[in-house]
Amino acid sequence: MNTTLEPVAVIGLGNLGRALAETFLRNGHPTTVWNRSAAKAEALVARGATAAATAAEAVAAGELVLVALLDPQVVQEVLAGAADAVRGRALVNLTSGGPEDARELARWATEHDAEYLHGAVYAVPRTLGTAESSVNYSGSAAVYQRRRSQLDILGTSTFLGTDAGRASGYDVAILAGMYGTLGGFLHAAAMARSTGINVTELTPKLLSWLTDLFPALSTFANEIDNEDYTTEESSLAMNQSGLATITRASESQGVSAATLLPLKELIDQQVAAGHGAASLARTVESFRNGQ
Amino acid sequence: MNTTLEPVAVIGLGNLGRALAETFLRNGHPTTVWNRSAAKAEALVARGATAAATAAEAVAAGELVLVALLDPQVVQEVLAGAADAVRGRALVNLTSGGPEDARELARWATEHDAEYLHGAVYAVPRTLGTAESSVNYSGSAAVYQRRRSQLDILGTSTFLGTDAGRASGYDVAILAGMYGTLGGFLHAAAMARSTGINVTELTPKLLSWLTDLFPALSTFANEIDNEDYTTEESSLAMNQSGLATITRASESQGVSAATLLPLKELIDQQVAAGHGAASLARTVESFRNGQ
Repeated sequence: MNTTLEPVAVIGLGNLGRALAETFLRNGHPTTVWNRSAAKAEALVARGATAAATAAEAVAAGELVLVALLDPQVVQEVLAGAADAVRGRALVNLTSGGPEDARELARWATEHDAEYLHGAVYAVPRTLGTAESSVNYSGSAAVYQRRRSQLDILGTSTFLGTDAGRASGYDVAILAGMYGTLGGFLHAAAMARSTGINVTELTPKLLSWLTDLFPALSTFANEIDNEDYTTEESSLAMNQSGLATITRASESQGVSAATLLPLKELIDQQVAAGHGAASLARTVESFRNGQ
Repeated sequence: MNTTLEPVAVIGLGNLGRALAETFLRNGHPTTVWNRSAAKAEALVARGATAAATAAEAVAAGELVLVALLDPQVVQEVLAGAADAVRGRALVNLTSGGPEDARELARWATEHDAEYLHGAVYAVPRTLGTAESSVNYSGSAAVYQRRRSQLDILGTSTFLGTDAGRASGYDVAILAGMYGTLGGFLHAAAMARSTGINVTELTPKLLSWLTDLFPALSTFANEIDNEDYTTEESSLAMNQSGLATITRASESQGVSAATLLPLKELIDQQVAAGHGAASLARTVESFRNGQ
């Protein structure tokens, strides 16, 4: 082991934490790990990691402390128990949560004389903890700059600004978009099955059409940022008719259209409000709660 | 005009019908057009099209008859009025609808000694009626083979089989998938806006992540076709937790999570039934109505 490399600590050994610890070990960093149930540390210890008895002990051992726990509540609890050890430490929290969760942890870190950088990881299992994944960071610019070489071994790093909540703001939006695509895929698969079409035959055609659609989403993004929904292309009325055809076909094939009905309702509201000729993108206005 | 080329008729002059007629005119085919409101034919007549006074007159003028109307009900009505003219004609119906609609029209065509080919068009406005779009066909293999050179000028042609409903079966599934992605995008855009993130900054990151996700959808497709939901990767329990984080974050940002709640409910049902360790793909089983 190259002891000139910075010691790191990994708090939490779920899928992400284990992949992070393995990556640092592979790159020769002295690596201390901690997990609430200690059994998960064993395989890492066999590869050269040091298992800490407490989170505080792990924090004390790492100049760079990576946190990958279940959710923001668990992060708060675990760090509260290690509060005396965090002074002077760079905390990099990769636990998923909302922007306000990240800002609260950043305030807590500042109060305890620690630096806070939040990261949102985009990886599939194969790329987790490797440079093939990508990680968006926000929070302490000093940590990002000083620890950039260590962060870059975990993925393609992007810094989104000093608001600790910004990476999470992007993250929850991106994941909402992802679940839309996942729900659409599952609905498409159910419809294919109901008419004897193999899902493996459907999927390449679906993915090819989604890819063709991506430029239209960029057009919608411009319309939304400019709040100008004038269009010659994908009007609310056209999509109202399209969605009605799909939900009708789905139900007649014995497949629940439930995952599409809330979108249909928002579009129907927009058309009923007189916006039928406007762009489908105008539906974004109906997502504000209480509208 | 090259009068050695086959005469074609285009029934219905909405966005698709107009693009089809323009493409045939550009390629030198004698082109007869009909639309319920005649005004839409004028610009095409100025480019060399013949306007028919009735749908029957248009059908009589075209060896190849392309139908692009609002929905399957309108197709039935219009063709019923042209029933005496369809004998010996090749009807290519590009009107969106469900598989059963296409099968019913195919039966009607057979009863009237016409051939029926159904087509589902995948195009954005810029590629509509050009070889850059793609069209899936099913129904009469004879029409597909005999008219292939004319069909190919409308897009990349694929023949899915002699069941007239098959192209529509793929189509309604693909469009259900598309609306999932559109709903996800709109939700993501609303979440970004609520925290001051430009949608034009979010969108490339979302599209890049969706593209990274596509191989996982192909894995899910295999799991569904094999009805084997064993996984080491994206379990129902993991996604239950992820969706809970996103819907909580969405609501705390003042953005309705309504478009995600039906998927969340289906996943919750699967986990409650003891399938938490199974693949997210198992959710497809919950889309069957009455389950």
